[in-house]
Amino acid sequence: MNILAIGAHPDDIELSCGGTLAKYAKQGHKVFTATTTNGNIGSAVLPMEEIAKIRKEEARRAAAIIGAEYLCLDYDDEMLYDDRSVRVNMINLIRYCQPDLIITHSPDDYNPDHELTSKIVTPNKPCDKIPLLAYFESASGVGFIPTEYVDITDVWEVKKAMCNCHQSQIAWMSANYKETVGDSNFLDDVEVSARYRGIQCGVKYAEGFRMAYNAHRIVPYRVLP
Amino acid sequence: MNILAIGAHPDDIELSCGGTLAKYAKQGHKVFTATTTNGNIGSAVLPMEEIAKIRKEEARRAAAIIGAEYLCLDYDDEMLYDDRSVRVNMINLIRYCQPDLIITHSPDDYNPDHELTSKIVTPNKPCDKIPLLAYFESASGVGFIPTEYVDITDVWEVKKAMCNCHQSQIAWMSANYKETVGDSNFLDDVEVSARYRGIQCGVKYAEGFRMAYNAHRIVPYRVLP
Amino acid sequence: MNILAIGAHPDDIELSCGGTLAKYAKQGHKVFTATTTNGNIGSAVLPMEEIAKIRKEEARRAAAIIGAEYLCLDYDDEMLYDDRSVRVNMINLIRYCQPDLIITHSPDDYNPDHELTSKIVTPNKPCDKIPLLAYFESASGVGFIPTEYVDITDVWEVKKAMCNCHQSQIAWMSANYKETVGDSNFLDDVEVSARYRGIQCGVKYAEGFRMAYNAHRIVPYRVLP
Amino acid sequence: MNILAIGAHPDDIELSCGGTLAKYAKQGHKVFTATTTNGNIGSAVLPMEEIAKIRKEEARRAAAIIGAEYLCLDYDDEMLYDDRSVRVNMINLIRYCQPDLIITHSPDDYNPDHELTSKIVTPNKPCDKIPLLAYFESASGVGFIPTEYVDITDVWEVKKAMCNCHQSQIAWMSANYKETVGDSNFLDDVEVSARYRGIQCGVKYAEGFRMAYNAHRIVPYRVLP
Amino acid sequence: MNILAIGAHPDDIELSCGGTLAKYAKQGHKVFTATTTNGNIGSAVLPMEEIAKIRKEEARRAAAIIGAEYLCLDYDDEMLYDDRSVRVNMINLIRYCQPDLIITHSPDDYNPDHELTSKIVTPNKPCDKIPLLAYFESASGVGFIPTEYVDITDVWEVKKAMCNCHQSQIAWMSANYKETVGDSNFLDDVEVSARYRGIQCGVKYAEGFRMAYNAHRIVPYRVLP
Amino acid sequence: MNILAIGAHPDDIELSCGGTLAKYAKQGHKVFTATTTNGNIGSAVLPMEEIAKIRKEEARRAAAIIGAEYLCLDYDDEMLYDDRSVRVNMINLIRYCQPDLIITHSPDDYNPDHELTSKIVTPNKPCDKIPLLAYFESASGVGFIPTEYVDITDVWEVKKAMCNCHQSQIAWMSANYKETVGDSNFLDDVEVSARYRGIQCGVKYAEGFRMAYNAHRIVPYRVLP
Repeated sequence: MNILAIGAHPDDIELSCGGTLAKYAKQGHKVFTATTTNGNIGSAVLPMEEIAKIRKEEARRAAAIIGAEYLCLDYDDEMLYDDRSVRVNMINLIRYCQPDLIITHSPDDYNPDHELTSKIVTPNKPCDKIPLLAYFESASGVGFIPTEYVDITDVWEVKKAMCNCHQSQIAWMSANYKETVGDSNFLDDVEVSARYRGIQCGVKYAEGFRMAYNAHRIVPYRVLP
Repeated sequence: MNILAIGAHPDDIELSCGGTLAKYAKQGHKVFTATTTNGNIGSAVLPMEEIAKIRKEEARRAAAIIGAEYLCLDYDDEMLYDDRSVRVNMINLIRYCQPDLIITHSPDDYNPDHELTSKIVTPNKPCDKIPLLAYFESASGVGFIPTEYVDITDVWEVKKAMCNCHQSQIAWMSANYKETVGDSNFLDDVEVSARYRGIQCGVKYAEGFRMAYNAHRIVPYRVLP
Repeated sequence: MNILAIGAHPDDIELSCGGTLAKYAKQGHKVFTATTTNGNIGSAVLPMEEIAKIRKEEARRAAAIIGAEYLCLDYDDEMLYDDRSVRVNMINLIRYCQPDLIITHSPDDYNPDHELTSKIVTPNKPCDKIPLLAYFESASGVGFIPTEYVDITDVWEVKKAMCNCHQSQIAWMSANYKETVGDSNFLDDVEVSARYRGIQCGVKYAEGFRMAYNAHRIVPYRVLP
Repeated sequence: MNILAIGAHPDDIELSCGGTLAKYAKQGHKVFTATTTNGNIGSAVLPMEEIAKIRKEEARRAAAIIGAEYLCLDYDDEMLYDDRSVRVNMINLIRYCQPDLIITHSPDDYNPDHELTSKIVTPNKPCDKIPLLAYFESASGVGFIPTEYVDITDVWEVKKAMCNCHQSQIAWMSANYKETVGDSNFLDDVEVSARYRGIQCGVKYAEGFRMAYNAHRIVPYRVLP
Repeated sequence: MNILAIGAHPDDIELSCGGTLAKYAKQGHKVFTATTTNGNIGSAVLPMEEIAKIRKEEARRAAAIIGAEYLCLDYDDEMLYDDRSVRVNMINLIRYCQPDLIITHSPDDYNPDHELTSKIVTPNKPCDKIPLLAYFESASGVGFIPTEYVDITDVWEVKKAMCNCHQSQIAWMSANYKETVGDSNFLDDVEVSARYRGIQCGVKYAEGFRMAYNAHRIVPYRVLP
Repeated sequence: MNILAIGAHPDDIELSCGGTLAKYAKQGHKVFTATTTNGNIGSAVLPMEEIAKIRKEEARRAAAIIGAEYLCLDYDDEMLYDDRSVRVNMINLIRYCQPDLIITHSPDDYNPDHELTSKIVTPNKPCDKIPLLAYFESASGVGFIPTEYVDITDVWEVKKAMCNCHQSQIAWMSANYKETVGDSNFLDDVEVSARYRGIQCGVKYAEGFRMAYNAHRIVPYRVLP
């Protein structure tokens, strides 16, 4: 199969479904990762062009770990809104990847870029294959009740490596949350979440998803690895 | 009463509430059908202008069966996004129809055109009468729990005839779903859905709806026929 | 695997998950069907003992079609309430069947027998294997949003034959619903429901389920056939 | 029609659907009110037999205002649990009243007596007519989203008179809530709730309900007055 | 703390959280009120510029009562849609106010201006402090289940005075609703709602809220006054 | 305040709200812990009387760590059903503890003992003080969306010590889950859950709760520590 994971910002995908993508890749499926924005707000000191370049390179390297191709629609961070340009670019992205499955944000996520990304992946017929659709959860999992779990125990180190590529974001997150959470280590949090979902489904590490309807259709078999 | 049914694409209305509209028309109410887009993506071979023309003519003929007037905002299929133009056109549409009741997509539908259509029908005061609001379900009914049902048994043949006007869409749908569903006949599916909702409310054929708040108001009597 | 389907009344299982059980049986799994009551209210003319005997025989024959064993806790119809007896009998039933998976009513079903049956299948540790748990939907599917579907197209005739064993209930249902639904044929309704769930998942006939937590656990792979 | 309103305690019905019952009675329908318990906990000073007698008399007088018949299953207050006795008595009550519609507590109410009362009104076939089913909301309306409203403006004084019959409960409630709510007048609260639901549906006073499935059936027309 | 209440239209804030803002102000917190639109549709007779000017002045005076600063993004009423301009202006507004807490519409409100306002207040990092987030309910409270209540009994007269500043809107609302609700006094409705929420939490007057996640975070202590 | 935590089985309380209880105790509140059953199923080798004695002693010692009093209704494990005895014993328990707040299972928990325990703590007036009510989540947190969080970072070691008292249950759980989860350490899972809820509310360790209505009432201030 062709798998297309679409997030709003570089690092969304790795945090939320990096293990599942690693598993797909390991099984021989073709994996694409894409972001609608280039994450150019993710620095308090660097110029926007520079941090965008860094973050896209980090996303490219994370994708490379599992042999995936990274694509970026290059919209400005926190500035993704619905217009003809984003619709056309999304359709073209889907046509390029010819996905059997799209994995993206949940449409009731809290961030406007996340939410719009989720909503525009479902034109009625973007390409010959109408892709299936799964929603991943946000980094902290708030308000998300998974209906399917993927056991990522055997690819846990790969997921960690993928997340670890996002050094600029890790630095930024650590700085932001220092006051409230103290010396929270961002990657520790990713591990806690994977362990938590693992407890719920009886394995060491897991990721949670909801299968979604696309063009009225869900399928009577398991699509997730 | 004046009834305005608004769908995103030609055929959405007939599939989802054609029977209810037929019943309203039979009772002497004035019915308008409208689509925000012209459905110009609905062909794999025809130029966009040509398929748009065909689909609008199909919608016009479906409306004519029940003596309804068809109106089209003529936006490009899969390209309906929120901006001043669509807001103004929607307000003007509502002003033209002076509806007592608007029937449209549910706001948590899976397609971005459907969703936006649903959301922009509720400006605070589009015209002197603030219309009531009902949501119809999508063609496959996924994730929709009706709170009201309309018995369409006596207008079932009329609904079928209205759906049957959409020959170009029937051909397109059949082609798309051939691989997965085999020789699925699109109109058979419409009948199964109407029968299913009928079973739930104790009649032969039915359509399901949710009454929605508009300008904070629902009414303490039945509006649906 | 050992599969245990538990319904409150004879015919609940066949209507709601007969196809899925047929599929499991066909794949070589050991299938048990059980009812908590003997359905002894299901006649307007026969003595309770007699109709109970008839209905259990019908359930036994339906099970026999797929080589399943039928078991009955033999409580009075509409008189299943929570007490030590029903808890002990349920644990003993589970111990006898040693199920890997239990399939039963949804806990928010409308009938008190259905609801209690659903709730008491989850003692913390009924036997060495803690069974997984799936909920089937009620006959009319009201208020149920499936998260998993089973394609029963290839066993559709088997499901029909299983349902057809319940002649006494078919007669009773037809009599009850005559006034409201007219000449509704009970088995036609079963077919409409299977076709409706089929449309939602892209096949001819399907059954819908929700996987449920039992002893905190769901699994990261598909259990349904 | 025959209408049967069943509450757990004397005063539940008058508070939650007294206006609707008054309206039914005014329209010539036959109304029954019933309680599963006799409210014998509702006093801090009187012996249980005595307060039970008082409360039943209050309920009888409230019913008499609208020409309704009051029936009591006479279980002890806060001691209604599920067993054969309560199931049999409920079936007999329904048989006596031959209701076309039962109105009762919502099954997710916070009080165990309320909840059980709600759940046991739905045996599969209590009598020849399978009654329709509506849920009223609790006195404070918490967690309840009505799908239907009844305009009780023209019977508001009747509802107030019905509630006013429950003097022993009004005294008890006032005493209980004195510390937290101060000099809260119980009947004032009833008026606020009716006004609040009225605002939501555009009238002066209203009551809110959810239509529920009974024996899989809801109807495609309005049953509430 | 710095508190920023953002509504779509002048008067939304006062109706929904005026009491809570008054309480914050009384406790010495710095309060900002803001609207994304200028409410320039809110008159059937005045030119848009004129009614906008009036409504902003009314909002300014309402804010002044509690010593709050009023800010307006000045978009046209019923014409707030998502684009770069509104995103940039929202970020600048947040930067100006440096809020510890933002209070705004619920994202599933019925009006498109309300909904967009709610959704765009959550960019990932609008300023150094990532604000907490609370949702207020719409004027009629439909479909809203509060998880936190604020006792506004001691500031009730202040809230009334704030609402009373919106004379142009009161006149407009009264005119609109005359046909359905008769001589409904708009401020009476505000009092009924506050009393209703008060009943639910055991005080005379209250306002209801839901705490929301912003940048994955809610806090383990009470933020509301 | 007097705090009463009621679980179905010894260890439910410590796992789910041990930290919160520790915090209450530290603040000088009087804490009671209680279980409706004695956990006498929790061993594959010991006689029921013996394991019951052990588990009650473990619960007593866990309570003692925070100076709490442990009470047991002594029903058989997996055999708690609704009858007069359990209702009376619950009322007596509440009268003995005179709680300002009861913390218990969520009513939609998966285990029948948990669920019944949750439902019977809300008689209309068990004692002079009508207690407030909070629901804790199950050990694996499935299907639970907290609306309030308690920061238990400063009492984390106390919670661990309380959980650690339940050696018999830890052994039993480890044995049960060995096949599926491998060498899962039960206390590790408790830590993962506390860390996960901590991430969601910005602290190191947290517990999640939902405040519930009891006798129609929630309060407009924070009750949790």
